Amino acid sequence: MVEQLEQGTIKCHAAVAWEAGKPLVIEEIEVQPPRAGEVRIKILYCSICHSDSYTLSGNDYAYRFPMILGHEASGIVESVGPGVTRVKPGDHVIPLYISECKECAFCLSGLTNLCLALNDTQYVGVLADGTSRFTCKGQTIYHFMGISGFSEYTVTSEYSVAKIDEDAPMDKACLIGCCIPTGYGAALNTAKVHKGSTCAVFGCGALGLSVIQGAKACGASKIFAIDINPQKFDMAVKFGATETINPLDTPNENIQDIICSKTLGGVDYSFDTSGGNVSVMKSALESTHSFGGVSVIISLADAGKKVEIDPRTLIGKKWTGCAFGGERGSNLNNYVRLYKKGELKIDEYITKSIKLEEINNGFDDLKNGVSVREIIIL
Amino acid sequence: MVEQLEQGTIKCHAAVAWEAGKPLVIEEIEVQPPRAGEVRIKILYCSICHSDSYTLSGNDYAYRFPMILGHEASGIVESVGPGVTRVKPGDHVIPLYISECKECAFCLSGLTNLCLALNDTQYVGVLADGTSRFTCKGQTIYHFMGISGFSEYTVTSEYSVAKIDEDAPMDKACLIGCCIPTGYGAALNTAKVHKGSTCAVFGCGALGLSVIQGAKACGASKIFAIDINPQKFDMAVKFGATETINPLDTPNENIQDIICSKTLGGVDYSFDTSGGNVSVMKSALESTHSFGGVSVIISLADAGKKVEIDPRTLIGKKWTGCAFGGERGSNLNNYVRLYKKGELKIDEYITKSIKLEEINNGFDDLKNGVSVREIIIL
Repeated sequence: MVEQLEQGTIKCHAAVAWEAGKPLVIEEIEVQPPRAGEVRIKILYCSICHSDSYTLSGNDYAYRFPMILGHEASGIVESVGPGVTRVKPGDHVIPLYISECKECAFCLSGLTNLCLALNDTQYVGVLADGTSRFTCKGQTIYHFMGISGFSEYTVTSEYSVAKIDEDAPMDKACLIGCCIPTGYGAALNTAKVHKGSTCAVFGCGALGLSVIQGAKACGASKIFAIDINPQKFDMAVKFGATETINPLDTPNENIQDIICSKTLGGVDYSFDTSGGNVSVMKSALESTHSFGGVSVIISLADAGKKVEIDPRTLIGKKWTGCAFGGERGSNLNNYVRLYKKGELKIDEYITKSIKLEEINNGFDDLKNGVSVREIIIL
Repeated sequence: MVEQLEQGTIKCHAAVAWEAGKPLVIEEIEVQPPRAGEVRIKILYCSICHSDSYTLSGNDYAYRFPMILGHEASGIVESVGPGVTRVKPGDHVIPLYISECKECAFCLSGLTNLCLALNDTQYVGVLADGTSRFTCKGQTIYHFMGISGFSEYTVTSEYSVAKIDEDAPMDKACLIGCCIPTGYGAALNTAKVHKGSTCAVFGCGALGLSVIQGAKACGASKIFAIDINPQKFDMAVKFGATETINPLDTPNENIQDIICSKTLGGVDYSFDTSGGNVSVMKSALESTHSFGGVSVIISLADAGKKVEIDPRTLIGKKWTGCAFGGERGSNLNNYVRLYKKGELKIDEYITKSIKLEEINNGFDDLKNGVSVREIIIL
């Protein structure tokens, strides 16, 4: 049920996270019209990612409750605020949690996908002017990552939308909002995996599968897929893994020692997609060789968690991290095109599509490892 | 006093480290002739480096006492063992603590200066066949880093010598055996400092000065020199530092915050030459920006010491380490030539030259920060 109120406010449904650690509640909310430089989007699909789950746990320091989660979304621009030039109503878009203003020092450097424009507001639950566009029962509801995709309508900065082709399959395109570029891009942009190289991918969830897919596209000759849930291995192999390893099978051996023994003292590239496990990050680093091995931390460590290493480990290696696979919004449509050409898997990630009312089951499925991605139909 | 004994053994003087933490003792030792693939060198000069001091402390896990320290040396080949083809008696050489066999997988990769040939023996005090060439009073004396430069004669693998020009100034060339390439090479080879870039060098000892010199040669436009001993700043500026910072001047501020505030959120390149201080390594990392900043650990951490970071720090950065500045023995003569052309400072490092008998004073001076390098004349 969507209702257009006076002065442009829209009444619609959203899953509200009222409190940390509690199930989401489907509520009728008000979504204000976009202000200067902002865009209001009718969200069509939004999938559930571990970061939503982690933020809901309340362990992240930045976000404020109550909020509307969801950041892997696709939708259509409904209206735009004054001064918006980049998109117009009717455009098909993917909202971005890493903005691209094309004007800040970072954007102009051409050396990073990070953008300074919304740094101070995007990750604390408000839009650029420091306020929220959501209310429910008279209360302010905060934004999440500048997206809040678990709402029929959302508002964000025009810097935070990527226009995609009109014929893009919107029920698939939502995955291009996070997990696919985050993994695929980490292999291409951050590690720059080379043809014939060896890779080790720690974790075979949606992120790990995307890394495997990216590493394969780069021509890696050997891709080790590591997970403690062997049920994930079929999919990993389907995506391009050449060998799967379950560390629980050899409890007396370090996984890094196993990988080093299967290669020339380590792989060329390793990737942590563990969902924030610092001991896995360390294992991934130690799985690379010392003649130029590169280890990439992709998953976001839990707030406050530290990783500890012997600094001598770094001799001859590079340890790095990336956000959104080093990918810029302006490049997202290329993923759509790869998919349309049959060169990018997306369908395979989708365990099922569910209604907004079923969202809490979706969170449970993800936590229990029985789904890769469940897509909420808004 | 050098004496040639039967069967080619030489009797000569050396500074023996009998016990951890105790002063060195000048002894008459026997140096056996070189075996197959080995070279005996008449050492002419050897300077004192922090690693000698650290190993003497007994805190390194690998080396065995009694041993002969010293690894920043220059000398002349006295004799060669069977099968040696790379050098001949009379050749001017710098002994190498990172061998270059040109045959192992690492050497053949072209991607690293590390070499597998002597990995199992070089760092545990023996030559490739697992034995030592030194005795004193009937006791085996162990080697150090395959060099043992505090002896009038030493024996090492032919893989561990770099031939240099005959007119190389040997009293200066010894510094090319460690501190100069280790710092200069870290800027050139490891960080690949680019023209117009910003750098932060933590520590202004011989290693830090070499990084500054290397960064300047690469065309860095801004070089911050950081030390808690302001007496080192004159030299740092002479070598190319554009700004000096003493963290003790602002006890309430993090040095990394100061550097980030003076640059666009951090420098392009930072270098740790702290002599193994893990908190400095962390500060150096945090002093780089997140649009491709590179932080290089140069100094060897004390054995067992760990460095702890928030993994999110790595987003958009690269953290790496190198040994001997990523430099190969086969390139060392280029440093000699740079010096001869007036493009590399070496004289300025040398606080004074001393006799072997004065070696313990030299260790004290280094520890007390009153010398950069003291050269032992053998």
